[in-house]
Amino acid sequence: MPELKENEALIRVIYAGICNTDIEITKGYMGFQGVPGHEFVGVVEKCGESNLVGKRVSGEINVGCGACSYCREDMQNHCPDRSVPGILNKDGAFAEYITLPVRNLHIIPDSLSDEEAVFIEPLAAAFEILKQVKITPSDKVCVLGDGKLGLLVGQALSTTSCDLVVVGKHKEKLSILEGMGIRTELISSKNPPTSPFSKGGLNSPLSRGVRGVFPSLNKSFDIVVDCTGSPSGIETALALVKPRGKIILKTTVAGSRQIDLNKIVIDEISVLGSRCGPFPAAIKAIEAKKVNLLPLVGKRFNLKNGVKAFEYASRKGALKALLKIN
Amino acid sequence: MPELKENEALIRVIYAGICNTDIEITKGYMGFQGVPGHEFVGVVEKCGESNLVGKRVSGEINVGCGACSYCREDMQNHCPDRSVPGILNKDGAFAEYITLPVRNLHIIPDSLSDEEAVFIEPLAAAFEILKQVKITPSDKVCVLGDGKLGLLVGQALSTTSCDLVVVGKHKEKLSILEGMGIRTELISSKNPPTSPFSKGGLNSPLSRGVRGVFPSLNKSFDIVVDCTGSPSGIETALALVKPRGKIILKTTVAGSRQIDLNKIVIDEISVLGSRCGPFPAAIKAIEAKKVNLLPLVGKRFNLKNGVKAFEYASRKGALKALLKIN
Repeated sequence: MPELKENEALIRVIYAGICNTDIEITKGYMGFQGVPGHEFVGVVEKCGESNLVGKRVSGEINVGCGACSYCREDMQNHCPDRSVPGILNKDGAFAEYITLPVRNLHIIPDSLSDEEAVFIEPLAAAFEILKQVKITPSDKVCVLGDGKLGLLVGQALSTTSCDLVVVGKHKEKLSILEGMGIRTELISSKNPPTSPFSKGGLNSPLSRGVRGVFPSLNKSFDIVVDCTGSPSGIETALALVKPRGKIILKTTVAGSRQIDLNKIVIDEISVLGSRCGPFPAAIKAIEAKKVNLLPLVGKRFNLKNGVKAFEYASRKGALKALLKIN
Repeated sequence: MPELKENEALIRVIYAGICNTDIEITKGYMGFQGVPGHEFVGVVEKCGESNLVGKRVSGEINVGCGACSYCREDMQNHCPDRSVPGILNKDGAFAEYITLPVRNLHIIPDSLSDEEAVFIEPLAAAFEILKQVKITPSDKVCVLGDGKLGLLVGQALSTTSCDLVVVGKHKEKLSILEGMGIRTELISSKNPPTSPFSKGGLNSPLSRGVRGVFPSLNKSFDIVVDCTGSPSGIETALALVKPRGKIILKTTVAGSRQIDLNKIVIDEISVLGSRCGPFPAAIKAIEAKKVNLLPLVGKRFNLKNGVKAFEYASRKGALKALLKIN
């Protein structure tokens, strides 16, 4: 049972979701030790603000110090002394209970199911892109990756009516987006040496791969979003983006990456890092049925089968693994 | 004698300047073969537009195809079929004559000396930053590098009245900026292992070096401009920039670079490549004496001593090498 600090709520976790960051953490990313998990829906059991008790909530994951210039300017996501449940100096949601400051909580409307609500955190991260970059219907946009985040980003960006394509390696996952009217491109995973998502550094056959598979896509996009979760995603994005275009970087992986920065200079590309996002936008989109989340759920596990859930979530092509906790 | 194409002018070169890109080209950057040189001032000798003959000119270096969507949208700098004198598929300015399309030429006001005019091209590249990013007096801005471009970028950015510091390793070069009221920080070059500009990959002591030398500068700048000309400049910039800050990348070097992209994602940094810029802004700044260029001239050489000029320009701490051609 976690200890309740001032201004915090004790939350009984109903569902938690396993995200790529959780898997990277098991490989050493962030050097985190403790209870992992940062996507969840739960019910407030104990809290100084009594009107919150019994309410179903989701929680923003950056816990700022509350005193620094970032916290004062509504940027607690970037507080240098922040903790982040399951990622940095705070136990996370793969447990019966989690604590979070009251100001991090969002009450979930009754129209959202528990399983939809567990997607609020990653969907908010997808909507962060729309806070950072103006996307218009005339923009050609490519989302790289049909993993858990790629499917959410594709759905979030499709709300702008931009000229969108989501590129991935899994027919069944892309078909979820196709069913929503979102254009997709399937890259064969049978031929890894020419796959744009194959691992490897600058000397990998990646760029040649993209050119080989989709020569017409090269240097044709105003905006490319890297949701590959692969160290080579940035290089694929650099091959696809137009001069003066933008690359949105969502992928974090353990280790550093080798890239050709000259192309960024010569083509005056913007590379923009993108992390956590606005919960209200995510909740609103689910309420308005602008996104379709339930097909993204791959498998449900009890908490005692958490290791099996991680094994499933780590498998190529796996959909979202949910932990049913309480 | 270069062959004159339609819509081109034949220009007798007076002065040409050696830039870091020229030196990188001798190491294999861009795989260029031909006459190098892209910074020059000259006099039009032959041209379809007779009013240009005899005029003193400087020239924009990107020669677009004139037909593609980039050329039609006033972005010939990014035409995929462009040539660039001294860099890409076109002979450059380290010769008695150069040709350029008439639309690339800018007539130089009489108030500018030849030696000042040779700086128009690199000064325009410095002013490109102000076209790309809004910089206000309250922005904390750091220019990394006191090389030829660093000194120009420092001067261009100081016109915004931002809170500016130029960090370099050469007291005598920084003193040029100090004399103009621009704040500088000298990093000792006597202790290369702790120098933030020392070469090396992610495992170099670079980030620790910055922290060691200027701990107070870390994560404190809204905007950091990498003019180091060193593969490790980007990493230094990543140590200095604030969360949600901007890095302007000016450095192009032969080869790829290893960087920690996770920091870009986590801190939501923008990395923005920046290349050629607006000639009118540069000419106007020189006319208005907002920049001070003559102290940047290190040494003058005749064309027949061109190799010696390259040797001088390649030396650590060298100021601008000019070739006096005609």
